[in-house]
Amino acid sequence: MEKAKIPVENDLLNTCARVAPLSQEEFAVARARLDTLTKPLGSLGRLEDIAAQWVASRQKDAGAPICKAVYVFAADHGVTVEGVSAYPSAVTHQMVLNFLGDGAAINVLARLHDARLRVVDVGVDADLEEHPLLIPRKVARGTANMACDAAMTDEQVSFALSVGLEQANKAAASGQNLVAIGEMGIGNTTAASAITSALTGNSADLVTGTGTGINDDVRMHKAAVINRALDRHFDKIPHADPIAILRNVGGLEIAAMTGMVVGLASHRIVSVCDGFISTAAAALAVALQPKVRGYLIAGHQSVEPGHRLLLDHLGLEPLLSLKMRLGEGTGAVLAMSIVESAIALYLKMATFKSAGISEVTDD
Amino acid sequence: MEKAKIPVENDLLNTCARVAPLSQEEFAVARARLDTLTKPLGSLGRLEDIAAQWVASRQKDAGAPICKAVYVFAADHGVTVEGVSAYPSAVTHQMVLNFLGDGAAINVLARLHDARLRVVDVGVDADLEEHPLLIPRKVARGTANMACDAAMTDEQVSFALSVGLEQANKAAASGQNLVAIGEMGIGNTTAASAITSALTGNSADLVTGTGTGINDDVRMHKAAVINRALDRHFDKIPHADPIAILRNVGGLEIAAMTGMVVGLASHRIVSVCDGFISTAAAALAVALQPKVRGYLIAGHQSVEPGHRLLLDHLGLEPLLSLKMRLGEGTGAVLAMSIVESAIALYLKMATFKSAGISEVTDD
Repeated sequence: MEKAKIPVENDLLNTCARVAPLSQEEFAVARARLDTLTKPLGSLGRLEDIAAQWVASRQKDAGAPICKAVYVFAADHGVTVEGVSAYPSAVTHQMVLNFLGDGAAINVLARLHDARLRVVDVGVDADLEEHPLLIPRKVARGTANMACDAAMTDEQVSFALSVGLEQANKAAASGQNLVAIGEMGIGNTTAASAITSALTGNSADLVTGTGTGINDDVRMHKAAVINRALDRHFDKIPHADPIAILRNVGGLEIAAMTGMVVGLASHRIVSVCDGFISTAAAALAVALQPKVRGYLIAGHQSVEPGHRLLLDHLGLEPLLSLKMRLGEGTGAVLAMSIVESAIALYLKMATFKSAGISEVTDD
Repeated sequence: MEKAKIPVENDLLNTCARVAPLSQEEFAVARARLDTLTKPLGSLGRLEDIAAQWVASRQKDAGAPICKAVYVFAADHGVTVEGVSAYPSAVTHQMVLNFLGDGAAINVLARLHDARLRVVDVGVDADLEEHPLLIPRKVARGTANMACDAAMTDEQVSFALSVGLEQANKAAASGQNLVAIGEMGIGNTTAASAITSALTGNSADLVTGTGTGINDDVRMHKAAVINRALDRHFDKIPHADPIAILRNVGGLEIAAMTGMVVGLASHRIVSVCDGFISTAAAALAVALQPKVRGYLIAGHQSVEPGHRLLLDHLGLEPLLSLKMRLGEGTGAVLAMSIVESAIALYLKMATFKSAGISEVTDD
């Protein structure tokens, strides 16, 4: 079995083994309690689903204060030499500096919504100075060009996954219980598109969108590059091995996010996915361990066509649909405000009994 | 002209006359600034539309701190004697006590999202004691049964509208600049459905939903009651006079919300509509003064079928779609968190120039 070659195996497999299924008992208790709250049955809609998922995941800790965080994993992509992006590769580094300089969208949203922001460098093609917001874990200065080579070596995949596992353990140890997963990496919609094809079997043309804003000619070129990579690396799609998918067409930040999502689930912590790229990482995590699915919330629906295909593949319905396509964890942080609202309603609303209110008449 | 009979005429018409169109100049300035921020062009999606609408409405005050409020207008409905609701009329009073006792969904959300909550009694069929959250403006102890009589007298419509105008003036004077419009009133989806038919010309069957949770037999009965009311009061639908619609098939809380939405627009304050009932009030406000449309944000998409028809009638796209059907302003308060995020991004993000980031390459 190919996975046995991966040095991270023990750590990753042990973590996968620790992921417990969502508690169906707690889920039922939560559903029953929701029906006692002073509102028509089911009238909070999706918020009731989210609250029940929260209770089933957090169990005895469901009433603890919410402690939010957003992790932005950053890395470069060798495939950018193929001309697949509207922006030059250097923008990954420039945007990381913008995060550290407090100027990006995610800075504004993390502050407004009281989420702790950390930027994890797993593969930016530049030297970064120490900074309080930066977690330096550079695996390599970007991936290789997936159209010509495997994007990563086994060791790089292993290291990047372990960065995510490590951050999940640290998040749990510091009491974070609601975590948004974001990313920055010029070229990474190309990687996410290739992963989506490889995981779901959809054609490159179907999964490939306009990324940060390419025109349709460039989009077709991008799909052709993805096709070339898929042909080179896989006999057929869908392909069953998520580690092989990561190695061949993934990204360092995507591997790290995959590790983080698995790690968080092992601590019963819900990951709020952002857009296309973080959802690709979440889909790989579910491919590694299907029980991870219970700990996922889809924050928003990106305009990237592959994102919808991935969400359908996972059976997830996004909380928000705001035509965003920025990444950085921005949609996930907005969605966390909805998640937190759902939890607060569950924990704090009066019941019909406590408020002395007539229940529904028999119709 | 029938409107001339309404004593509120001067106050309402003067307020309507003060509503200025959204500044197209400020709107263009906002759009241009959005394109300088450190993000791919247009990548914040709907948030960019909201930010531009905010700037065009608030103009020189666009940078002022956000001061949020939610007003819940409460009243009873005579049509409940027809058996159109899953809950008895007494629940309006009980839920108002729940608001004052801090136990309802809107209490939880208003606190979490830092929105000042006020409950305006315009027509609850019960005596209410003084309370810091309560604004006592009872016009009558509920409406008459629209299936047999006009729901309100001219004087009642006038008084209820003036309550909304007064609250808008007070909101503006106290510095509130982002206001959610909510309601509580057993039977008021029947009123909102009748208003929607009367305004848009859609049949009672199309606009009538299950409200707080009736079964399909009761829903058909509810549609028949609405049909009876429409036949009694209108020669044909759509009907052009929003005041006549209010008088015949409206509600006291709906009239007050209509006044509030017009009044807020006259102060260049954006109203965030909640679900079906508050959107019906907003649609009546737009029928009174089409310029009001520029100051509306549709907070969420309720599951009530008439809500979608009203949103289409107004050309509004809701920010959230969470399958909620609770009212109280709950969806609007959740949406205000998104609106506030949009404004913060507009005001606080770095520009490409200030952050020294490469702009899009020419494709």
